[in-house]
Amino acid sequence: MAMYGGNNKKRVALTVSYEGTNYHGWQIQKNGISIQQVLTEALSKLCQEKISVIGASRTDAGVHAMGNVAIFDTYTQIPMEKFALAINTRLPDDIVVQEAKIVASNFHPHHCPCRKTYVYTICNRIFPLPLQRNQSYFYPQKLNEEKMKEAAQYLLGEHDFTSFVSVKSTVENKVRIIFQIKIKREQDYLSIIINGNGFLYNMVRILAGSLLEVGAGKKEPIWIKEVLFAKNREKAGKTLPPQGLCLLNIQYDEFCKLPSVMV
Amino acid sequence: MAMYGGNNKKRVALTVSYEGTNYHGWQIQKNGISIQQVLTEALSKLCQEKISVIGASRTDAGVHAMGNVAIFDTYTQIPMEKFALAINTRLPDDIVVQEAKIVASNFHPHHCPCRKTYVYTICNRIFPLPLQRNQSYFYPQKLNEEKMKEAAQYLLGEHDFTSFVSVKSTVENKVRIIFQIKIKREQDYLSIIINGNGFLYNMVRILAGSLLEVGAGKKEPIWIKEVLFAKNREKAGKTLPPQGLCLLNIQYDEFCKLPSVMV
Repeated sequence: MAMYGGNNKKRVALTVSYEGTNYHGWQIQKNGISIQQVLTEALSKLCQEKISVIGASRTDAGVHAMGNVAIFDTYTQIPMEKFALAINTRLPDDIVVQEAKIVASNFHPHHCPCRKTYVYTICNRIFPLPLQRNQSYFYPQKLNEEKMKEAAQYLLGEHDFTSFVSVKSTVENKVRIIFQIKIKREQDYLSIIINGNGFLYNMVRILAGSLLEVGAGKKEPIWIKEVLFAKNREKAGKTLPPQGLCLLNIQYDEFCKLPSVMV
Repeated sequence: MAMYGGNNKKRVALTVSYEGTNYHGWQIQKNGISIQQVLTEALSKLCQEKISVIGASRTDAGVHAMGNVAIFDTYTQIPMEKFALAINTRLPDDIVVQEAKIVASNFHPHHCPCRKTYVYTICNRIFPLPLQRNQSYFYPQKLNEEKMKEAAQYLLGEHDFTSFVSVKSTVENKVRIIFQIKIKREQDYLSIIINGNGFLYNMVRILAGSLLEVGAGKKEPIWIKEVLFAKNREKAGKTLPPQGLCLLNIQYDEFCKLPSVMV
């Protein structure tokens, strides 16, 4: 079909939102269905060519996204302003493409500097609320937000986050920059919103688990500083479960020419 | 077991929250599993006696609740302050009892005056958000909240709501009082919060569908007044789908001695 043919190969960046509950994470794998797989198959059918999708963040099983970024190369002639609508008709309800844009052919989500924002949501009340059960971590004991805010200050800036990374991580350089941490309560939900230049394996979930220790009064805020200094995963708090985690957005530096792909 | 025995029969009121997605509504029926059925079975096992549950609101399939009220009579000796925790261990994740209280033995949720609050949530943005897809109605066209607020004013007070009730309704008296309607936007979500002394079959969903017509610019606010006056279901807007609807709470008059069962 001429409509889908054409000779101009281009690189497209998608902003993808999904509920991770029913998937074995972003990354294609043998053991279960992944978001990358579903997206790859839908794109290949829509564009009528073999598509290979690279995601900016390989979110874990059960983790959600408002705005993950994924790129692929295609010869499609579907206009970009109609592309999201077209691909969404081929995707299940729990994966929605919010935007599609042509980007520079050398743009790569792993190699271009960016800022990522994650939110970890804690449902903090006596009994859980059924409606948000797959999108928050239920914690019934009272949390002291002010102490959590105080503790969060020690995490700001450039640090070696060895204490806050899964022992399964194979990345050598564990230095990252955290630009901002907001802790806010809306009724029974406490959100930890973290913005940084990159996050290690399970890092946000371990940071959230450590701030929880402080909020619950088990540790003092200064303890976070000691944990950072120790460079030892065993010193930090627990890895909180995946359902509370959501990748809000990824902002690429201007020179990457991805000016408005962000949510 | 002595712990569960005893001779004192009492009436217990539960505040129940649930996600309605996986149920055929509140009411026990032959065609599918209902919230009332799941609750009845769990209570009968916990109290070790045959329990009969009466719900204040028979919510439809797919409709949610933060605080529906249900009563049952029991000889249980489980202390009320531990009852919610005990019953929740026997309920699925999508049904959670928030509170249990002993009420007057003549308290009946259908016969005591009350105020109910419902919220209808519209996801109003270009593409849907996967995380809230079962808890909101997706509507992509721009909505004018101010016009909706203006239209809502005509609904306040005591009216015959014949135009806003399903033709399947068998209730004769269609006069109800609406005390308050709030329309508020939080980012991409528009909420219609309605408080009244009772609601007819599909009434909130038809009211929401009619306010949507106004918000979308298809009708002027004054049209709502004409629809009320017509006492004809065909004149009103569409019945919006169930997933956007949630019963927030039910407040009983003080003399019903149910002072703090509300969420």
